[in-house]
Amino acid sequence: MMVADQLPGDSRFFARSGPFTLERLAEAAGAEARGNAGTDTLFEGVAPLHAAGPQHVSFLDNRRYLPLLKETGAGAVILGPAFADRVPEGCTALVSRDPYLAWSRVARLFHPVPPARAKRHPTAVIGENVIIGEQVEIGPFAVIGDGAQIGDGCVIGAHATLGDHVVLGSGCRIGSHVTLSHALLGERVILYPGVRIGQDGFGFAVGPDGFESVPQLGRVILEDGVEVGANSTIDRGSMRDTLIGAGTRIDNLVQIGHNARLGRCCIVVSQAGVSGSTEIEDFVTIAAQAGLIGHIHVGRKARIGAQCGVMNDVEAGADVIGSPAMPFREFFRNVATLRRLSRR
Amino acid sequence: MMVADQLPGDSRFFARSGPFTLERLAEAAGAEARGNAGTDTLFEGVAPLHAAGPQHVSFLDNRRYLPLLKETGAGAVILGPAFADRVPEGCTALVSRDPYLAWSRVARLFHPVPPARAKRHPTAVIGENVIIGEQVEIGPFAVIGDGAQIGDGCVIGAHATLGDHVVLGSGCRIGSHVTLSHALLGERVILYPGVRIGQDGFGFAVGPDGFESVPQLGRVILEDGVEVGANSTIDRGSMRDTLIGAGTRIDNLVQIGHNARLGRCCIVVSQAGVSGSTEIEDFVTIAAQAGLIGHIHVGRKARIGAQCGVMNDVEAGADVIGSPAMPFREFFRNVATLRRLSRR
Amino acid sequence: MMVADQLPGDSRFFARSGPFTLERLAEAAGAEARGNAGTDTLFEGVAPLHAAGPQHVSFLDNRRYLPLLKETGAGAVILGPAFADRVPEGCTALVSRDPYLAWSRVARLFHPVPPARAKRHPTAVIGENVIIGEQVEIGPFAVIGDGAQIGDGCVIGAHATLGDHVVLGSGCRIGSHVTLSHALLGERVILYPGVRIGQDGFGFAVGPDGFESVPQLGRVILEDGVEVGANSTIDRGSMRDTLIGAGTRIDNLVQIGHNARLGRCCIVVSQAGVSGSTEIEDFVTIAAQAGLIGHIHVGRKARIGAQCGVMNDVEAGADVIGSPAMPFREFFRNVATLRRLSRR
Repeated sequence: MMVADQLPGDSRFFARSGPFTLERLAEAAGAEARGNAGTDTLFEGVAPLHAAGPQHVSFLDNRRYLPLLKETGAGAVILGPAFADRVPEGCTALVSRDPYLAWSRVARLFHPVPPARAKRHPTAVIGENVIIGEQVEIGPFAVIGDGAQIGDGCVIGAHATLGDHVVLGSGCRIGSHVTLSHALLGERVILYPGVRIGQDGFGFAVGPDGFESVPQLGRVILEDGVEVGANSTIDRGSMRDTLIGAGTRIDNLVQIGHNARLGRCCIVVSQAGVSGSTEIEDFVTIAAQAGLIGHIHVGRKARIGAQCGVMNDVEAGADVIGSPAMPFREFFRNVATLRRLSRR
Repeated sequence: MMVADQLPGDSRFFARSGPFTLERLAEAAGAEARGNAGTDTLFEGVAPLHAAGPQHVSFLDNRRYLPLLKETGAGAVILGPAFADRVPEGCTALVSRDPYLAWSRVARLFHPVPPARAKRHPTAVIGENVIIGEQVEIGPFAVIGDGAQIGDGCVIGAHATLGDHVVLGSGCRIGSHVTLSHALLGERVILYPGVRIGQDGFGFAVGPDGFESVPQLGRVILEDGVEVGANSTIDRGSMRDTLIGAGTRIDNLVQIGHNARLGRCCIVVSQAGVSGSTEIEDFVTIAAQAGLIGHIHVGRKARIGAQCGVMNDVEAGADVIGSPAMPFREFFRNVATLRRLSRR
Repeated sequence: MMVADQLPGDSRFFARSGPFTLERLAEAAGAEARGNAGTDTLFEGVAPLHAAGPQHVSFLDNRRYLPLLKETGAGAVILGPAFADRVPEGCTALVSRDPYLAWSRVARLFHPVPPARAKRHPTAVIGENVIIGEQVEIGPFAVIGDGAQIGDGCVIGAHATLGDHVVLGSGCRIGSHVTLSHALLGERVILYPGVRIGQDGFGFAVGPDGFESVPQLGRVILEDGVEVGANSTIDRGSMRDTLIGAGTRIDNLVQIGHNARLGRCCIVVSQAGVSGSTEIEDFVTIAAQAGLIGHIHVGRKARIGAQCGVMNDVEAGADVIGSPAMPFREFFRNVATLRRLSRR
């Protein structure tokens, strides 16, 4: 039936730019070109090693794929210094100490993100006293509440709903079907489709006739460059703000509870959850399906493994895994111990 | 960049009421006022201990924050009897046996939930033979199916989609982007944004050419006061109804399978999952990321810990955790045993 | 308050067909009718054993419900050969070697899925150069991008958003509030409400000023008969396509990472997650809340238990559970060992 895996960058779905000269590519990549090709040799796009032709730039990041490198028909390959002399004859090595970043930039050169078009779909519902910057794109059926502020170059997707008085810095991209309320966003924040931000946190007191909701009087603050994956949820705070630090990346289906604080450049992988009032310092990684209980503190650069259940504070730089969380070493030693004891 | 944590209740995002007299606050809180302030002393709002001024009511629920109490500038503080004599001079103690509930009610007094406005956005699509009560608010691009019934005082959010013949009791609040079908809702049910209710359960038979979907012929019934968090999913039953008992609170990103039954005043925390046909009695707590297999029974007041994997029935009042689930005590004893054995 | 569990198939919510003769039902079920009823005896619908009357067909699949069979008032009961002589007097046994499948087909006969109506809601926004097949139904506020292709008999739900150039084979059903982009769908693909397909995968390089997104230049391919449950997310590939094989069923709130490959007729239960670039062969079952790390391989017919954490390749036919994953037997032996050691 359908044929998967033609070249990446199907022109139906992706903008294309180029061709670009070898010189331009080396510059974008911050890489050194080694080979016989002239600096004005033109390249048309990117392709994986096994499918690339002389017009393509390809990429090697992993020793595992060295056999493919040997056979590649690519005109140029981005790779680290250790592999630079392994490119086949006639292929240019684009040598970088950080080949993945170099690759990312070259791929972006060929396939730029389309800029916001200054276009407001006629079906969009815009409230009163809304301040809209320059070059803002607003999709069909978007709803923008009274008093909202939308910075220059923002893109508001189809069906997105922005509550009254939300503030978006410049260059934000709000995916389709996003719900956003009680929130202040910095610049270049990206919310993927179906994200829910700013709804009530999960807080209630026990009253005589059942649970009574406790007013959730805080906001959500997303600093510059934060990204939030599809269908993830971030509740607003109760008495303080829920805060996500600059540059932090959150994957799909992640839950962030009310009053939680994440630092700068954290990574939260899919289906992980951070409970209310927990504080996470900068550069912390939380792997998939991990869960953090509420009211704890996670130190800078800690790494929390997949499916980890964190019930206590985690020290800066620590690597923990397991449920309850323990150091990586201890966890795998426990696994080995139990296996040994069971086999007796 | 952006400044987090000004006082709670940012007036851009939250309705405000007041000022209120000390007498009125004490009455709302069901609390006893102790101090020198007159009963007609006016208060303007709520604030946390560290930020409150004489015009604010604050709150102490946890011994941990006693140092903040000592320094607070709050005019009044809601707290339990044990801490009543710790308020600083000039500060009124509002003493309650249930300070969290008292606090909730005072905060709600200052920040009431805006009532439904009798307003139907002109873009909403309303089907035939729909019965709409009084004082119903319907947002932009809402879609309401034929024969639906919507009780008095309901709020239907932007982009919400109600299927044919769904029934909503009075005072329900349906968040934006909710999908609701094959469902009967009691009074005061709250669905947060992105909730999916009433879609087909995950049921199929193995046919000669692959899986064949088994018709899902039941409904979803949400009794009075049920709340369902953002992006959670509740499938309709196959041969009987999926049922959520009165007052039960479900957090974000929770999955409830077809035919499941939850009792009254249960709590289901974020990212937990209840598989099909499982029956849960009243007052059960299911913590975050826990999962319950299908076709089991959980007794009244049982508590299921975070990330717990429940494969068998759970007795009334039991506390279980771990995967597979076991009593709390056993779980932590196992953890200690394994740690000890690994260290040898 | 509300009364749950009248007969299944509430006529407000479900289409009804019939009555049908015993002969027709036996034919649909592929079952043999045993009893005194004539082949032209008419039946009006399906009902569970405890509630069925002489006009109803019921069903027994599980020995546990034999007491209900004895008492049933059903006119006919679908069941396996082993129980065929247990039906009460006057009740016809519809005997099938695969009673669940037989039941499914009879229930479907009485409650057919309504066909697509050739109707385009006037509020739908249709892009340029869209190719729409015959008998296509498009709901309110649907947004269809430029150059999209929609096969015969598709249903596009309210608020669904189809990106530019997506392709849908015939007979697809796209639920309300779905976001679909960068994707090619085969025939009879069903996406439940709130599904997000085709957004950027979670890929970034570390640049001098923080994370830089790596272009995600692949697509999502869903082969014939794939179903994806409510609020699940499938990211598009980075350098190759994310691919879901024909007939595979994915439940609610599941995450499929970029470049992942699932084979034919796999089952992925709710809240499970498959990380990027992982390859899963045909007929694999992944139970609820299981998680698979990236870049691994799972062999044909493997079964991965609930909450399992899979960090390594899984062999064809293996049954694994636990975190980290291990064979079922080993897991339960470990549980027993640890319990024994803790009790000493």
